Amino acid sequence: VEQNDLTGIRLWLAEHHPHEIADELARMDSSQAIVPFRLLDKDRELEVFEELDPPHQQEILLGLRDSAFHELIAEMDPDDRARLLGEVPAKVATRALAGLSPQARKMTAALLGYPEGSVGRYMTPETVVLHRDLSVGRALEVVRAQGHDSETIYTLPVVDDGRRLAGTVQLSDLVLLDPETSIKDTVDVLVPRVSAVSDAEEAARLMQDANLLALPVVDSEERFVGLLTIDDAVELIEAADTEDIARQSGASPLAGHYVAASVWAMARARSVWLLLLIVAATLTINVLQVFEATLEQVTALALFIPMLTGTGGNVGSQSATAVVRALAVGEVRVRDLPKVTWRESRVGLLLGCVLAVIALTVGTLLVQDLEIAAAVALSVIAICTWAAVIGGAMPLLARRVNVDPAVVSAPLVATLVDATGLLIYFTIARAILGI
Amino acid sequence: VEQNDLTGIRLWLAEHHPHEIADELARMDSSQAIVPFRLLDKDRELEVFEELDPPHQQEILLGLRDSAFHELIAEMDPDDRARLLGEVPAKVATRALAGLSPQARKMTAALLGYPEGSVGRYMTPETVVLHRDLSVGRALEVVRAQGHDSETIYTLPVVDDGRRLAGTVQLSDLVLLDPETSIKDTVDVLVPRVSAVSDAEEAARLMQDANLLALPVVDSEERFVGLLTIDDAVELIEAADTEDIARQSGASPLAGHYVAASVWAMARARSVWLLLLIVAATLTINVLQVFEATLEQVTALALFIPMLTGTGGNVGSQSATAVVRALAVGEVRVRDLPKVTWRESRVGLLLGCVLAVIALTVGTLLVQDLEIAAAVALSVIAICTWAAVIGGAMPLLARRVNVDPAVVSAPLVATLVDATGLLIYFTIARAILGI
Repeated sequence: VEQNDLTGIRLWLAEHHPHEIADELARMDSSQAIVPFRLLDKDRELEVFEELDPPHQQEILLGLRDSAFHELIAEMDPDDRARLLGEVPAKVATRALAGLSPQARKMTAALLGYPEGSVGRYMTPETVVLHRDLSVGRALEVVRAQGHDSETIYTLPVVDDGRRLAGTVQLSDLVLLDPETSIKDTVDVLVPRVSAVSDAEEAARLMQDANLLALPVVDSEERFVGLLTIDDAVELIEAADTEDIARQSGASPLAGHYVAASVWAMARARSVWLLLLIVAATLTINVLQVFEATLEQVTALALFIPMLTGTGGNVGSQSATAVVRALAVGEVRVRDLPKVTWRESRVGLLLGCVLAVIALTVGTLLVQDLEIAAAVALSVIAICTWAAVIGGAMPLLARRVNVDPAVVSAPLVATLVDATGLLIYFTIARAILGI
Repeated sequence: VEQNDLTGIRLWLAEHHPHEIADELARMDSSQAIVPFRLLDKDRELEVFEELDPPHQQEILLGLRDSAFHELIAEMDPDDRARLLGEVPAKVATRALAGLSPQARKMTAALLGYPEGSVGRYMTPETVVLHRDLSVGRALEVVRAQGHDSETIYTLPVVDDGRRLAGTVQLSDLVLLDPETSIKDTVDVLVPRVSAVSDAEEAARLMQDANLLALPVVDSEERFVGLLTIDDAVELIEAADTEDIARQSGASPLAGHYVAASVWAMARARSVWLLLLIVAATLTINVLQVFEATLEQVTALALFIPMLTGTGGNVGSQSATAVVRALAVGEVRVRDLPKVTWRESRVGLLLGCVLAVIALTVGTLLVQDLEIAAAVALSVIAICTWAAVIGGAMPLLARRVNVDPAVVSAPLVATLVDATGLLIYFTIARAILGI
């Protein structure tokens, strides 16, 4: 691309799948990415475009001529289009909506009416809807007549006279069953359903748990409004995991690609928590000032500070990470708080006892002072137990007050455990050394 | 369950989906879980059983009578069965295989022949295979005749005379297209394919990127051997993410459910890294011993140790976490090492400068010594830059030597940065204080 080798680019494009092309485009500068994109065939253009994230889609759009711009928007799946228009500046969105057919504009506006992050923003409204009084054979004819515009025809919603959702049937059943069978008798009425305003990530995890290819979405009166499809659910879960992982390390989630993000954006995403944490870390200075006289008497006590705070932080982070993940995948609920605390306290105590043996050995060898070594070892046990309890309980407490549990990041737990751990250490040391 | 209220259990079972029942069973002791399981209808029994993880499946199996045991095994999907038998003790596996029909036994043995973690262990061999010379109408008849035993009929592999994979067709195409159309003209020949011995997680991420419901699997001679379906891919991705998240916090991945795991198992999963890290942390003691004379002269320097090691650890963990995730989802490759290092060094420098302002203020206010505060502030800048570079580079270096990058956990980076950070801090402090 840099050498403007158009033949070379054309060759490369012809040999790769849309998702591979999209991946390469996402790694380029916006000014560069538009060149290979313009060289794509009309039909592959759309495929590649739909594989890009909204920020990259926006960059491509702004580089296109008016006719190409409107054509691309018009051909997108309605849910993808609504999601893109929800993120671009209002001016671009208005221009895009103006180029749509009245029907497509209405559909897009309806999807944009659902809150951000809700199922409504991710579902597809373009489906074949079957009436429950049809026979399997008739239903298959309906699918044949109307199925061309649908994003999926594998899961088909079945409704009653008031468009209320009765359940779903699978296309495989329509194909494999006797055409005379009634839809009433094959519809899966127990299939889970979600409201269009409910949380999209939860809906996606439900699809995963229940092994669904598509999840029917209903309005407040149980009327069918759309399907959440598995490809969107998989994207939702990946995005949620990436977000949780970033949060766990004390960073805000980064919108877009690691390689394409600016250094400023990366620093900004990480700075908020770092600033809070360094302020919180002044607590450790306060604690140490209280014990400054002790430190002046026995400087050797300072040698073990990094090891103790490090170990406490590690144990606390492990507990927090395990509980945040267990919450995310639904293995633990808020009401498990006493169980989790009791569990983590025993795990922490066990780990503390094992690590104390090492601490005692190292302490004795390096400072040749049994009293100091004993103080360090006892502190390891106390700090590990305390850190595991804090790390296990905090995500559940966060969820209880409706804060994202992933905010209880490893660095947050580590910083909290640092200050309290030092308090524990010097209290024990003073008692043993008799100062 | 505890009160042995059978009617209550029956009522609860009737009202819940198989995946919800499986979730509750996974939270119980094995001796308890068997009671509600036995109360399930025959056909729901299988549905619930297939939702359980292999360790829980094994517990349930061992509680069943012989006939129920064999029936359940025989009715499982072949890929799920192979995965279960790959994990149970050899005695149980032999007993299970003995109860199977010769054909099912052969199929299971073939799947078990693929290495653990390979696509072969997760694919389904039971599919309808279409020949490329068929017409769409004939193909639909083949699907109708043979489709009842297949795990999926939505993606259909198309082969040539030598059973070599030509591509796939979608059932939706068979239903929607003119029956006279030739399969040759509709088959998607560009569809990605993977070898049965390739890595299952990579194949699952490929399916996600390319939005596939099923991925065709071939042997070394390009012959079709099975399909990897999206439900298995989603499970694979979730398991891989859970594993990465655990590794990132320095714990081994825990097999099974958070609530059901024993305290011993949890402590064991976390102890390996903690032990290594506490040994590595003795490095910090060595470093501090080198500077013990300095510490005795200016005890106030000790006050800032936890804040500096904490901040360095936080910055390093953020970089490591971001790069490990970017590697996992394919945004970064090994050859990006120089780019990543350069990027992270600038992010670290930026963050360091911002945090240094806070450190300078806090230092001046709390110890009233401008020289010490300046030493702390300069150290923050140097440590942040260094930590970001280490955190960003190490996962890529790990991948280059074929070690799972997730092993470069936040605690590992933090511990490494602790020792080097102290070295930086005391060197700067000695230069500024002139001691």
